[in-house]
Amino acid sequence: MSAALPHPTSWSGDLAVWADAVRGRVNGALEKRLADLGSAPPRLAEAMRYAALGDGKRIRPVLAVAAFEAVGGVGDAVLPVAGALELIHAYSLVHDDLPAMDDDDTRRGRPTCHRAFDEATAVLVGDGLQALAFGWLAGAPLPDAARVRLVAELAAAAGPAGMVGGQQADMAAQETGGDLDLLRYIHAHKTGALLTASVRMGAIAGGAGEPALADLTAFGERIGLAFQVADDVLDVSADSASLGKTAGKDLAQHKLTYPALLGPDAARDLALRLKDEAVARLAGMGPAAEPLRALAVYIVDRTR
Amino acid sequence: MSAALPHPTSWSGDLAVWADAVRGRVNGALEKRLADLGSAPPRLAEAMRYAALGDGKRIRPVLAVAAFEAVGGVGDAVLPVAGALELIHAYSLVHDDLPAMDDDDTRRGRPTCHRAFDEATAVLVGDGLQALAFGWLAGAPLPDAARVRLVAELAAAAGPAGMVGGQQADMAAQETGGDLDLLRYIHAHKTGALLTASVRMGAIAGGAGEPALADLTAFGERIGLAFQVADDVLDVSADSASLGKTAGKDLAQHKLTYPALLGPDAARDLALRLKDEAVARLAGMGPAAEPLRALAVYIVDRTR
Repeated sequence: MSAALPHPTSWSGDLAVWADAVRGRVNGALEKRLADLGSAPPRLAEAMRYAALGDGKRIRPVLAVAAFEAVGGVGDAVLPVAGALELIHAYSLVHDDLPAMDDDDTRRGRPTCHRAFDEATAVLVGDGLQALAFGWLAGAPLPDAARVRLVAELAAAAGPAGMVGGQQADMAAQETGGDLDLLRYIHAHKTGALLTASVRMGAIAGGAGEPALADLTAFGERIGLAFQVADDVLDVSADSASLGKTAGKDLAQHKLTYPALLGPDAARDLALRLKDEAVARLAGMGPAAEPLRALAVYIVDRTR
Repeated sequence: MSAALPHPTSWSGDLAVWADAVRGRVNGALEKRLADLGSAPPRLAEAMRYAALGDGKRIRPVLAVAAFEAVGGVGDAVLPVAGALELIHAYSLVHDDLPAMDDDDTRRGRPTCHRAFDEATAVLVGDGLQALAFGWLAGAPLPDAARVRLVAELAAAAGPAGMVGGQQADMAAQETGGDLDLLRYIHAHKTGALLTASVRMGAIAGGAGEPALADLTAFGERIGLAFQVADDVLDVSADSASLGKTAGKDLAQHKLTYPALLGPDAARDLALRLKDEAVARLAGMGPAAEPLRALAVYIVDRTR
């Protein structure tokens, strides 16, 4: 961890500029990885590209790169890590949108994968993207020990005690309803686990020591939750065009959300408090952590 | 690679006895791995156990252990590898059985996962089992370099240029029909890739040198194809009760199969020829490869 190292993605104080540069690097890596899927059937390859390369905030890759650089990481070794996180996220959107799950027609401003292709292809796109994510991670230009640890981190965050478990609990809650404890479980797992893993995995790729990793984990947990609280608030306050997905859907589906349980103002206050707690955990880090600090603010202030 | 090392699973010349012992070790490892899924929702955990712990031949784990021992591997370090392969296989069955895919009601003599639970849970069971497989592999008690290589192997075999690609092509062929080249593609990918990977991954876990790995890869490719040809033959010749799944379904679904394209006798001859070619590649290996040789014979002679 060294603030004296040059930033590979230069920081001018403007998060939008910085994040655009990172997104450009990440999108380039994603395009390159998905350009040649070997002997995959052309239709499957096309659908995987459709699902993974669409417009998107790339929050997870951006967090991973920010954490990587915050601990002194330099260069492109983080890109397979960032890309693998995005592939896992993209697969989860494709499966969550399926008729048997959230049954969504629109995602990122376009037809969902099963609408643009077909349901069987969408199942396989998700399955294929998950496998590709682990394969990419295993091939990252990092020491073997780091790669093994990264695979374990991603598997835990994406698996039954992580993202998949959160989605299962979310589906069940639509039938049974629930309380704040259940909502916390859903958010911590469904989106929180992968967001926290993004920060942790970026830091691990950057060679973080355990004290820095502990601070970044606490940071990641808080912004992970803040992200989802903000997402819930956006669903009730924004329109579909600016969201790029169907707005007001949570309410229509009787989804358990923070605004529904706490009211929109208290939900917004919670997001702000989590952001402050997150940023406080970066106090020991120098200017290299500026993008991470700015990301915490963006996550609660964003409009889509 | 040493035939002088003791076999951890003792070989008496009877494959059924040997395979039962291996299955016992593998099932024990699977049960232990699935007994505690951390903070996973209980219903998801139950459904994952239902999908992965049912009756099954455990062909992939048995092949992995046989290859591990053929190259001189001793002990239980192969069990996470064998278990991960079975989890990938189990996830693929759950997803292949979905209404949007093969729409099957019965699997391994019981209701399919989406019939016993529900469709959303079945999607998530498959997703969760895949993540668990990679996490288990990353935690195997093997050198870091071997673990990284095993993750890459499994990802390639399970992904879009492997199993998932084969399933996509199989779905498409039900609409369009196809020729022997397409059938070869489907079989080599849908089942062949993971069966070959089972042999390769067992050998890698056992510390195989590259010459032995090349022979075992050729063995795996041939028995992988022979397995599927035999499966096709069984579908037209066996009944549902002995198969544990719906028999005659390939024909009813106009699936492209070897018996349909070549006739049942020529298909059976092809399986036998592939088996002979496979066994020939083990000529340089000693008695430690006996279980592998017997498995090649079993794969074409089995009745379910």
